[in-house]
Amino acid sequence: MTDEPAFYSHPFDDDKLKEECGVFGVVGVKDAANFVALGMHALQHRGQEAGGIVAHHPEHGFNSAHRFGYVRDNFTKASLMETLPGPVAIGHVRYSTAGKKGAVIRDIQPFFGEFSMGGCTIAHNGNLTNADQLRRELIEMGAIFQSSSDSECIIHLMARSIQKRHADRIADALRRVEGAFSVVAMTRTKLIGVRDPLGVRPLVLGKLGDGGYALSSETCGLDIIGAELVREIDPGEMVVIEDGIVKSSRPFAPAKSRFCIFEHVYFSRPDSQYGGRSVYDTRHQIGVELAREAPVEADLVCPVPDSGTPAAIGFSQESGIPFALGITRNQYMGRTFIEPTEQIRNMGVRLKLNVNRALIKGKRVILVDDSVVRGTTSRKIKDMILDAGAKEVHFRIASPPTAWPCFYGVDTPDRSKLLAANMSEEDMRQWINVDSLKFISLDGLYRAAGEVNGRDNVTPQYCDACFSGEYPVTPTDQIDKGFEMKTAAE
Amino acid sequence: MTDEPAFYSHPFDDDKLKEECGVFGVVGVKDAANFVALGMHALQHRGQEAGGIVAHHPEHGFNSAHRFGYVRDNFTKASLMETLPGPVAIGHVRYSTAGKKGAVIRDIQPFFGEFSMGGCTIAHNGNLTNADQLRRELIEMGAIFQSSSDSECIIHLMARSIQKRHADRIADALRRVEGAFSVVAMTRTKLIGVRDPLGVRPLVLGKLGDGGYALSSETCGLDIIGAELVREIDPGEMVVIEDGIVKSSRPFAPAKSRFCIFEHVYFSRPDSQYGGRSVYDTRHQIGVELAREAPVEADLVCPVPDSGTPAAIGFSQESGIPFALGITRNQYMGRTFIEPTEQIRNMGVRLKLNVNRALIKGKRVILVDDSVVRGTTSRKIKDMILDAGAKEVHFRIASPPTAWPCFYGVDTPDRSKLLAANMSEEDMRQWINVDSLKFISLDGLYRAAGEVNGRDNVTPQYCDACFSGEYPVTPTDQIDKGFEMKTAAE
Amino acid sequence: MTDEPAFYSHPFDDDKLKEECGVFGVVGVKDAANFVALGMHALQHRGQEAGGIVAHHPEHGFNSAHRFGYVRDNFTKASLMETLPGPVAIGHVRYSTAGKKGAVIRDIQPFFGEFSMGGCTIAHNGNLTNADQLRRELIEMGAIFQSSSDSECIIHLMARSIQKRHADRIADALRRVEGAFSVVAMTRTKLIGVRDPLGVRPLVLGKLGDGGYALSSETCGLDIIGAELVREIDPGEMVVIEDGIVKSSRPFAPAKSRFCIFEHVYFSRPDSQYGGRSVYDTRHQIGVELAREAPVEADLVCPVPDSGTPAAIGFSQESGIPFALGITRNQYMGRTFIEPTEQIRNMGVRLKLNVNRALIKGKRVILVDDSVVRGTTSRKIKDMILDAGAKEVHFRIASPPTAWPCFYGVDTPDRSKLLAANMSEEDMRQWINVDSLKFISLDGLYRAAGEVNGRDNVTPQYCDACFSGEYPVTPTDQIDKGFEMKTAAE
Amino acid sequence: MTDEPAFYSHPFDDDKLKEECGVFGVVGVKDAANFVALGMHALQHRGQEAGGIVAHHPEHGFNSAHRFGYVRDNFTKASLMETLPGPVAIGHVRYSTAGKKGAVIRDIQPFFGEFSMGGCTIAHNGNLTNADQLRRELIEMGAIFQSSSDSECIIHLMARSIQKRHADRIADALRRVEGAFSVVAMTRTKLIGVRDPLGVRPLVLGKLGDGGYALSSETCGLDIIGAELVREIDPGEMVVIEDGIVKSSRPFAPAKSRFCIFEHVYFSRPDSQYGGRSVYDTRHQIGVELAREAPVEADLVCPVPDSGTPAAIGFSQESGIPFALGITRNQYMGRTFIEPTEQIRNMGVRLKLNVNRALIKGKRVILVDDSVVRGTTSRKIKDMILDAGAKEVHFRIASPPTAWPCFYGVDTPDRSKLLAANMSEEDMRQWINVDSLKFISLDGLYRAAGEVNGRDNVTPQYCDACFSGEYPVTPTDQIDKGFEMKTAAE
Repeated sequence: MTDEPAFYSHPFDDDKLKEECGVFGVVGVKDAANFVALGMHALQHRGQEAGGIVAHHPEHGFNSAHRFGYVRDNFTKASLMETLPGPVAIGHVRYSTAGKKGAVIRDIQPFFGEFSMGGCTIAHNGNLTNADQLRRELIEMGAIFQSSSDSECIIHLMARSIQKRHADRIADALRRVEGAFSVVAMTRTKLIGVRDPLGVRPLVLGKLGDGGYALSSETCGLDIIGAELVREIDPGEMVVIEDGIVKSSRPFAPAKSRFCIFEHVYFSRPDSQYGGRSVYDTRHQIGVELAREAPVEADLVCPVPDSGTPAAIGFSQESGIPFALGITRNQYMGRTFIEPTEQIRNMGVRLKLNVNRALIKGKRVILVDDSVVRGTTSRKIKDMILDAGAKEVHFRIASPPTAWPCFYGVDTPDRSKLLAANMSEEDMRQWINVDSLKFISLDGLYRAAGEVNGRDNVTPQYCDACFSGEYPVTPTDQIDKGFEMKTAAE
Repeated sequence: MTDEPAFYSHPFDDDKLKEECGVFGVVGVKDAANFVALGMHALQHRGQEAGGIVAHHPEHGFNSAHRFGYVRDNFTKASLMETLPGPVAIGHVRYSTAGKKGAVIRDIQPFFGEFSMGGCTIAHNGNLTNADQLRRELIEMGAIFQSSSDSECIIHLMARSIQKRHADRIADALRRVEGAFSVVAMTRTKLIGVRDPLGVRPLVLGKLGDGGYALSSETCGLDIIGAELVREIDPGEMVVIEDGIVKSSRPFAPAKSRFCIFEHVYFSRPDSQYGGRSVYDTRHQIGVELAREAPVEADLVCPVPDSGTPAAIGFSQESGIPFALGITRNQYMGRTFIEPTEQIRNMGVRLKLNVNRALIKGKRVILVDDSVVRGTTSRKIKDMILDAGAKEVHFRIASPPTAWPCFYGVDTPDRSKLLAANMSEEDMRQWINVDSLKFISLDGLYRAAGEVNGRDNVTPQYCDACFSGEYPVTPTDQIDKGFEMKTAAE
Repeated sequence: MTDEPAFYSHPFDDDKLKEECGVFGVVGVKDAANFVALGMHALQHRGQEAGGIVAHHPEHGFNSAHRFGYVRDNFTKASLMETLPGPVAIGHVRYSTAGKKGAVIRDIQPFFGEFSMGGCTIAHNGNLTNADQLRRELIEMGAIFQSSSDSECIIHLMARSIQKRHADRIADALRRVEGAFSVVAMTRTKLIGVRDPLGVRPLVLGKLGDGGYALSSETCGLDIIGAELVREIDPGEMVVIEDGIVKSSRPFAPAKSRFCIFEHVYFSRPDSQYGGRSVYDTRHQIGVELAREAPVEADLVCPVPDSGTPAAIGFSQESGIPFALGITRNQYMGRTFIEPTEQIRNMGVRLKLNVNRALIKGKRVILVDDSVVRGTTSRKIKDMILDAGAKEVHFRIASPPTAWPCFYGVDTPDRSKLLAANMSEEDMRQWINVDSLKFISLDGLYRAAGEVNGRDNVTPQYCDACFSGEYPVTPTDQIDKGFEMKTAAE
Repeated sequence: MTDEPAFYSHPFDDDKLKEECGVFGVVGVKDAANFVALGMHALQHRGQEAGGIVAHHPEHGFNSAHRFGYVRDNFTKASLMETLPGPVAIGHVRYSTAGKKGAVIRDIQPFFGEFSMGGCTIAHNGNLTNADQLRRELIEMGAIFQSSSDSECIIHLMARSIQKRHADRIADALRRVEGAFSVVAMTRTKLIGVRDPLGVRPLVLGKLGDGGYALSSETCGLDIIGAELVREIDPGEMVVIEDGIVKSSRPFAPAKSRFCIFEHVYFSRPDSQYGGRSVYDTRHQIGVELAREAPVEADLVCPVPDSGTPAAIGFSQESGIPFALGITRNQYMGRTFIEPTEQIRNMGVRLKLNVNRALIKGKRVILVDDSVVRGTTSRKIKDMILDAGAKEVHFRIASPPTAWPCFYGVDTPDRSKLLAANMSEEDMRQWINVDSLKFISLDGLYRAAGEVNGRDNVTPQYCDACFSGEYPVTPTDQIDKGFEMKTAAE
């Protein structure tokens, strides 16, 4: 059942892969929900459609708020935040699956379950690859699903566990699911964090003064509340935090880490860090590698705003070609052109971007972008640049060709719509119609991410399924629906 | 878990018993949801806080909308109604329990369950007296509750039934519950209606042209869509309507009917009819009986607007004392003084009512009201009448003293707050401070309702627990919470 | 220039004459705006589209709020009322002219003008019959009009007066205008009230404790704030209230009073009083006169809700035929069906009214209504009554045939759309298609209003232009636009 | 009179000078208002509080819409834009004066006046320095002001002109005013543009296909609608555009141009161009000049986002010190933290900005910002940078010290709050507490803006009053209020 649509995605956001979620939790502070709101604000880039917070207070019990829209527009109002008292709270920001217009409030996390040993609420970043199968089984057994979210399976699996403690029920439930998950959960007194055995999605632990702790998808969520980074939660690890003590356990069979490399390329904020390196550094280094792999003579290196900027700076510094902001982004463009007039809809990319004509005229321009998905935006930007009088246009892309969909918590178009799934690099160049088009190599990307010897092709250090078609977890539901895995021949 | 409060009840509505729900369903017409919206509008007096509609369309599946506020403000917009296509739909209007400020969208019915044989949605008028007990059991077995509503138990009981057909699962579920229920349910193609064995809450069947059928709490819901009244659903009956055919069955053990007599006194709309008599007639006749039982010399008979009017007309006609509208109701008073200033809050009843001073001055006035609950409004009205210069004030009440709470779907204050539970008639007269105060007798009320021999004290023809303390269904959950039933001595 | 439309009138309100305004002012109390809001709420029947308040505080100066919608939805919020501090305030409720969909916030009164001797704000009930002419003149002289309202002329005339005091400027301005006006105005310290020489629209003076005073269109506005009625402002009188002192003057040439008789028939609230009699009394007496003038054998007298009720009671009492509420009004019907679906729009009157079928069936029914304007509603109601099985339907109308438009502050359809302007009584009966149709005579109406000898046909005691076509003030602008006055032959 | 406040400024926006307006107009195209909305969107950086559009259609006349909030949230809705038909339209975006919380809808431009020769509407960018004086005079003569805006004087002056044509009345009016004005006006068929004799604010002319023309504050407004830049309107020039013909005239006494140099430093969008150079170029060049004037050894050059970026790139390129984005801006920060909780309010700058800790740690950092107004933000940013482990912090400011308020259409704090008005450069360095602080010299700024010989100190090429205290137009109203001009000694 779908409830009436409440919010439509922005029409111009469809040419990027989209991270689907961010999770955040805090325990051991006064009014934890206020900290959670700040953390969610810092993680807003991981999900702009909706957000939810659940808080627990010894006297007032569990209270929650689920809202469409930005954190800043909802979870900053005193009148709402006052309804979420207590020293422990978790939150979730969410981006809905592209194409599904039916966004409904029941799909907004955190999800809550009342159990005989007390309530528990969970927030999930990632995607379960066997959720359809589990849902059918659970319905057969009498479960009533309230949302269309794969994450709701976790709550129903918990409800059927015979464990006496919430954390054990969470472990029971997560041992039944497949796919990618970074989960933040909460009982009346405990904050719980779990990461799937491959550690596909990030999750970090931070410390506040006076025994408070925070869990966040990225380190930028810790920075905003002034928490100190303790460490990343390990792949396959569960932490249970109560009374200022962090207990760690390993409920899953051990496995080699396969962190999502696209977090470096595009999803994570540049000021977040993984393994002691900032995402900005990696992106800057991608630009350096690109300049080495695919040099070209030109007058200017311009980023496609805003995500291509660090790589463009790296490219400029390595190549010696001057860096310039040749394309200006309209900072007042929001996601709220809900009902644009026909005339405005046709303006497309111009509403967001404008070329600095005086700067570009007569120049040979290298454009650095983070990725090419459908390629439609690349064509439009090329048109704008030529229209402004550029002599040559060279595209340099800070990721390898995106040829496969992601089933681990990222919103990707059907394979048929991925430009790189259907064309060679040269075909793409002709289709976009530019003087040159080069993607960084997979090895170059790994080097930029700190793997000095490049990709280990036997057991790669990262999940790079979107580039390589090598899926570390079998996408069961998708195969049921007809998805064809890469064959040996490909 | 309570979600953030979304809507507060009106501060001046607290001195009446409140019907908690109305249900409506239509099958076999184009755009059934439009008919359901109209039916809900006609039943708005049964629940003003919120409403929901679920519709099913062969191609577009189940769609729903749940909204706080009046039907007229939500379910009349083309943009919303277009999202609810299909030939079958059900709806529900709802009043929240007094005092509980936490109205949440998840508590708005209809409730929906996805089963292995397809989805089913239900709307419930009444109250289950063993819902707390059932909820504990169901949670123990792995059910995840999403609302705080007793009605959600029905869906979970259905989910655990092993019956193959929806209707049989509904019957299974309803055999496990106790209390009062008039249920309208719907599958992809069927409209289903059920009434509890005692038939405490009403439910009527109507016919539209071309094989369409409607189920409604009251006949006024049929009138608005131009449906012809077929008959009332019998106590203990289930009807399943599909392809223009109505199939009837009796899933419960037979029992003597105990229809709620307060539906006649106050809840139902005066233009609705039960057993071939209009509610207006019964109320008019209550006035006649009151004039016989409790005559008094006076100059004018004035109703307390608006519900006392039919009885006041009856009183006037029987007594020969002229009828007049001595109190004017402000028709622009809504329920939306959500955030009144202090000064306005203190105006109390004056915002709604004004005495016609020129008419009342120097007169002996009989005021006819439908009931006395806390008595606070009666005092304020008396003050207004005296303030306008009346010489005498006589209250005549069109129901017996309300001394017991209702547990069958009516919002009643705690017994401690019911004036008649704590005072004799004379004490009440002194407390309200009027020249006389008389309630109709229980027998008089039964006579007015058409029982020429009055009440059958062995097995009464109606449920009159709110007056008599004789509860036809044991209020299990309430007894668990400490409610004391009437003792032999009372 | 018209600003974008903000609010559309209700589609079912178009078969009544509409009072266009109510005015209210208070001086000499703490937070006068709160009192004004209450008074406006009591006067809401005089204008439902919009309302405005201006208050003055010695420190915070003039502050104002203008809003579309009901008083209860806007001027009850503490957050808004706190922005309107001070001991003197005036308010205005407004109904827009039918047909003009372009309601704009700039048209909402009170209007404000900054003069060299300080600010002044005015609220006007009535209509100026030479406003178009004045507007042209004023524009020629350099005035910039901000609204499309005739009332704005008053402010511009004041701005061009050479008088030193506000009250004198108001008198100067009002001596230049023609038509009907009851004006409430306010300076930093004074509350001012003026009524046109004929006293077409009402205006009453009330007294609060501690030297506070109030001006209100009707006495019901005084009742709600607990003010004592002092007296009506006389036709042609101006009062200036300051420091608890009421100064009266007569700025206009003396004239015989011509109060609007339709205020008795329909516009004013039944609990308001004029000349010591309640409007309810007059309406009741109209029913008595009607029963004498146009008796008929029948089983029931039913009012057309709600305005026909007092006359129906009078008719019943005089004729001895029982009074009954045969038609039930849906009290949850608001004015907010802004965007109804086609199906709902076609329901027409059924959304608002339902016939009590069990009561009406087989009966000869007298329907008492206040007036017939276009006649469309009368036809629909007749259909509903017959559809419910009535044997005969007799219409009795509590006003004479409405055959002429009003130009003094009432929204009337074009003459071509007034049923009585185009048909004889018998033609109307056939068109509505009822067994009989009778209007009260003009003399009967005057008798009911207390003129024991009926109408003085030489200089009538009231303005009854809508019935008689005798306009006490020449409608200059209308004649310019082609309106034809009654000829001697008519 | 102030109407109730409708919108509060953002609490973190108070440490920049604020351009107060942008104007835009289009004639000779279908649905001109759609083009105007796009132009206003491109000019949104010049005024974020509110916007208005007036359009004229031969049949539907003048229509307008005035709204608080962003262009994208209001003027993109088909339902609104359909109410603004016609081939000619003008628009205005507006920022309210800081500190004045009372933003009211009546203050939103364009302003409209109905004259005997037909309606005319105007939009004004700039500020009139003798508006208070004019307002007093006009009120004395009978003008009724509706807004608190200085720009309304223009309409009233037009109303009192005896000229027969709108354009002549505009010229008459503008000859009476003093100060800075770029005005876009419109009659039923003409689009009119005027720039004050000194040309303080910008105004450019663009050409659309098929005889259409546009006027815009900046060239970026032409780019978004695909209009070709024709030229800048000259200081002191008036253009009247009708039927595809542009007529130019010079209604004022000739004067030397004094364009606002702060348009280059901060106000204008980097992709706009003046005199054939992009604003980006000038800013980049400021960075180059700064690096020459105030070199320092360091590891990184980081911009303060986003306005410091071009100068930081220039500084980096000239100095050879690597450019890096050391501070990340939260792109989901809007202006809508209207009612933040206390805890969130105290977060201050952290909600908007985060330091890339991994990048900054242990580094000597040069921060390039566009200006220092109060200095409070500079202190907070310095704290964040040090907190992240920077070894040294050097501020380089891309404008001279801002020591004087602007009275020509820019929102500046009182002189007492301007850091540079009260401290020497060294005092400022100590107060901000950084290792070094350097501002570009006035000559350096002029060189960067293309004046190879720097500032002409006799008659400067630009208005630089905010830096130099040399006001090219006497600020009459301010002097009346006590403002003290720079003395010879200063």
